[in-house]
Amino acid sequence: MKKAVVLLSGGLDSTTTLAIAKSEGYEVYALSFDYGQRHEVELRQARIIAEKYGVVKHLVLNFNLRDIGGSALTDDIEVPKGRTATVKDNEIPITYVPARNTIFLSFALGWAESLEAGDIFIGANAVDYSGYPDCRPEYIRAFEDMANLATKISVEGGLKFKVQTPLITLTKADIIKKGQQLGVDYSITWSCYDPVLVDDTIDPEYAPCMQCDSCNIRLKGFREAGMSDPLSKD
Amino acid sequence: MKKAVVLLSGGLDSTTTLAIAKSEGYEVYALSFDYGQRHEVELRQARIIAEKYGVVKHLVLNFNLRDIGGSALTDDIEVPKGRTATVKDNEIPITYVPARNTIFLSFALGWAESLEAGDIFIGANAVDYSGYPDCRPEYIRAFEDMANLATKISVEGGLKFKVQTPLITLTKADIIKKGQQLGVDYSITWSCYDPVLVDDTIDPEYAPCMQCDSCNIRLKGFREAGMSDPLSKD
Repeated sequence: MKKAVVLLSGGLDSTTTLAIAKSEGYEVYALSFDYGQRHEVELRQARIIAEKYGVVKHLVLNFNLRDIGGSALTDDIEVPKGRTATVKDNEIPITYVPARNTIFLSFALGWAESLEAGDIFIGANAVDYSGYPDCRPEYIRAFEDMANLATKISVEGGLKFKVQTPLITLTKADIIKKGQQLGVDYSITWSCYDPVLVDDTIDPEYAPCMQCDSCNIRLKGFREAGMSDPLSKD
Repeated sequence: MKKAVVLLSGGLDSTTTLAIAKSEGYEVYALSFDYGQRHEVELRQARIIAEKYGVVKHLVLNFNLRDIGGSALTDDIEVPKGRTATVKDNEIPITYVPARNTIFLSFALGWAESLEAGDIFIGANAVDYSGYPDCRPEYIRAFEDMANLATKISVEGGLKFKVQTPLITLTKADIIKKGQQLGVDYSITWSCYDPVLVDDTIDPEYAPCMQCDSCNIRLKGFREAGMSDPLSKD
């Protein structure tokens, strides 16, 4: 059985990507990161999703991106609210985390080499992508070229790494439709950058803010797909 | 003053690289990693070296490469001893850590973007390099190409990242000679993969094994430079 490392944030895109990798017959090794993001809801959901999909292993690597700074997702900078346009702004937002996908893909590459897995799946998307440079196809190809010069298994063993981005040219609505076909349960995915605490017990419960870029893109996607978001009250 | 992120392991190569960056007038931000390597001696020395060189900041990032496996430097695999040949073997040794330089350079890239530093220095060496694929010039160029597609500052701000590898074509003897010219104190650098505990007190003292690849390459370098290694008893 062919092996793949799948980057799993617990969001809509990475969960759909995991479902695609499974549907293509891959033995999945899921990789998540605890990197000092503001909210751990997505990590909790990633664990639930990994278990639901019966991945061979779910590895959560821990490091602190707060130390390198420069993002509203890891620093004490306010997450922008109520913006309607996204990529059309032609401006990279403050929620961008410096070199995040490069760091994530580098760990995925190291684990893939160890596992002798030739495929790395990432839910990068260049359409409703919120303006991140490290979600573009030209970036992904450059990472792949670098990866195949970086590793023992590619240089000595002839294995060529492929970074698979099945969502890269899809709209959010198309991603949701694709996920629906594959039976993805979007009620267990998490997208919000700035969750609202609704139940402050031992096992706190959060609701999405419905105002940040990520919530806006998600809501628009469900609307355009003619469906309703199971996380939305509408 | 121009800023640079310098990867600092505490070894001979990275210390010489730091000295070169300083001599070229860079304001240095030193970056080290606590990644589950077998011995923390090199990290202790990195702290001493960073302080000695008066870097603006010395950041030590913590993560565990043991989790991704595949190396004698992080796993419970024996470090090879008594080998005399290195690169001539044309074989990548078991001390290779999957995607290590890619992971290190990715964090350096994120920090460099945050700092608006255009230069990243790494002491990679393709001559006496112990056979690691991620120390070759073609790998470094591919990383640079990827970096300049990955980041907000390169895409929006027009900053071009450069990965500087001043040692890449030098022999170990030439590196040592270069360091001597710059006044590097090699007695505070550490190269051994498998240190021997010589004093088991609260502040334990280690001696290099003088048998691993890294010790062998270092000894040969000092010999060929016509000098003696301050860490050697000879």
